[in-house]
Amino acid sequence: MSVWPTTRYRATSVSWMIFRARRPARSSASYWPGRRRTHPPRLPTLLKQQRLPRAGRPLPHNPEDQNFDSRDSRSAHTMPMREQLRNFKKERIMQEAERLFFERGFRGTSLEAIADSMGMTKPFVYGIYDKKTDILYDISLRNISMSLEAVESARQTGGTPADRLAEVARRLTRVCIEHREAVTVFFREEASLEPEHLLVINDMKGRVDRAIGELLQEGVAAGIFQVSDVRIAALAIGGMISWTYSWYRPAGRLSAEDIQSQMALLALRVAGFKT
Amino acid sequence: MSVWPTTRYRATSVSWMIFRARRPARSSASYWPGRRRTHPPRLPTLLKQQRLPRAGRPLPHNPEDQNFDSRDSRSAHTMPMREQLRNFKKERIMQEAERLFFERGFRGTSLEAIADSMGMTKPFVYGIYDKKTDILYDISLRNISMSLEAVESARQTGGTPADRLAEVARRLTRVCIEHREAVTVFFREEASLEPEHLLVINDMKGRVDRAIGELLQEGVAAGIFQVSDVRIAALAIGGMISWTYSWYRPAGRLSAEDIQSQMALLALRVAGFKT
Repeated sequence: MSVWPTTRYRATSVSWMIFRARRPARSSASYWPGRRRTHPPRLPTLLKQQRLPRAGRPLPHNPEDQNFDSRDSRSAHTMPMREQLRNFKKERIMQEAERLFFERGFRGTSLEAIADSMGMTKPFVYGIYDKKTDILYDISLRNISMSLEAVESARQTGGTPADRLAEVARRLTRVCIEHREAVTVFFREEASLEPEHLLVINDMKGRVDRAIGELLQEGVAAGIFQVSDVRIAALAIGGMISWTYSWYRPAGRLSAEDIQSQMALLALRVAGFKT
Repeated sequence: MSVWPTTRYRATSVSWMIFRARRPARSSASYWPGRRRTHPPRLPTLLKQQRLPRAGRPLPHNPEDQNFDSRDSRSAHTMPMREQLRNFKKERIMQEAERLFFERGFRGTSLEAIADSMGMTKPFVYGIYDKKTDILYDISLRNISMSLEAVESARQTGGTPADRLAEVARRLTRVCIEHREAVTVFFREEASLEPEHLLVINDMKGRVDRAIGELLQEGVAAGIFQVSDVRIAALAIGGMISWTYSWYRPAGRLSAEDIQSQMALLALRVAGFKT
């Protein structure tokens, strides 16, 4: 069988080159719909096991790998080249999508535009993501994961509940300031998430609020905090810190560090901490 | 001249009825583009004069009337019927648009969909609004005006700066809770506003923050508040209150009044008020 396609592309060599260029090699034609896929575990199971799937397709040779961060902690030496390449692509698609969603909104950005902005064509994106909402889910998931990680890691530092609450506020403020484009997309486009994705995201949001609440409760039990309603106080701290994304300007009057310190101080006040 | 149009609609009476139904009467054909309009004053002038225009078209017989609230304070007896009708239409369009923007997002809602949801056709909306962004502007403007009005009115109540700050927090929380659909649209769709509209909105947002800051400063001067950075504290209070829109649920554990009281208490803590 000839490698040449039907007469349509034979006559004009330029059209044929474009046709080739826009079409992946047959051997790696993994973007065709209808191919067999391993189905991810169902949501209730995931929530119970606290395993949080990424929306991007699992690698064919390792369908169990649903590790969240595409910047995998395994070194370049131990991770198979194919997986490295895939993670690199995923990372770049997420970066471009984040920027475009921020500038034009989720609905105003097509998968084609994301591919375009990387000088690629749509099949490049389809090789990693089936749907645009999956990219939004990954951006949201990374974002809320960073917040949760900031709160959880700060809670495990030593010191009194007051020291730890101040550290929680500092780290959470840093995430909101450093990743404010992602945070903006995250808050703005919540309604564009698939219902099952929103469930996961809201569950994680709840865990951030509960973690702050537990720390406040610990301080109350230790007699150093005074809070009449722990849950409202936790939401207030979360709110005043999250809000920084909307007003922080890199060229502003205060540095990011100054704002982190101020938020730590104000979080302690909300907690009724007596210095 | 016959009232009947060209042969095209003469033959089928049903088509003609549809044609008539979708077409406004010629005498009130105010939605046709190209008609003469009075141009609104330029933005710097407006900002200086603190006159904030609504985006909807001014009434032909009273082009100077750029009163913000379509629910005009003039009674039904003194306001001309034509103006009353226009305000009623504007109000209804804003309500429907608010609901649809909240449910489907600004980009996901067409002017046609807004008209549809009222059982009307597009020209009905075009009679009041030229562009969809003008509706978004009016929703945003009303929303930020309510917040500003809540803060300004509370500042003018009697009592110490502490009494007034508590009242500011209570009233602002009430706006965020009662109008949380509008508030959600307002925060979510900011990027969809026209640049000149965004300028007006951001100016008013700044006025809300400055008003809180001035009240804090007053308390500091009176020796009852202790704040190391007045502007950050004002933004923190604004943030923790605004955030309520994202977590308040009508069927939740606490009533709206409870949350208002809690926010008043926490705002005083952020202000470093010593009880």
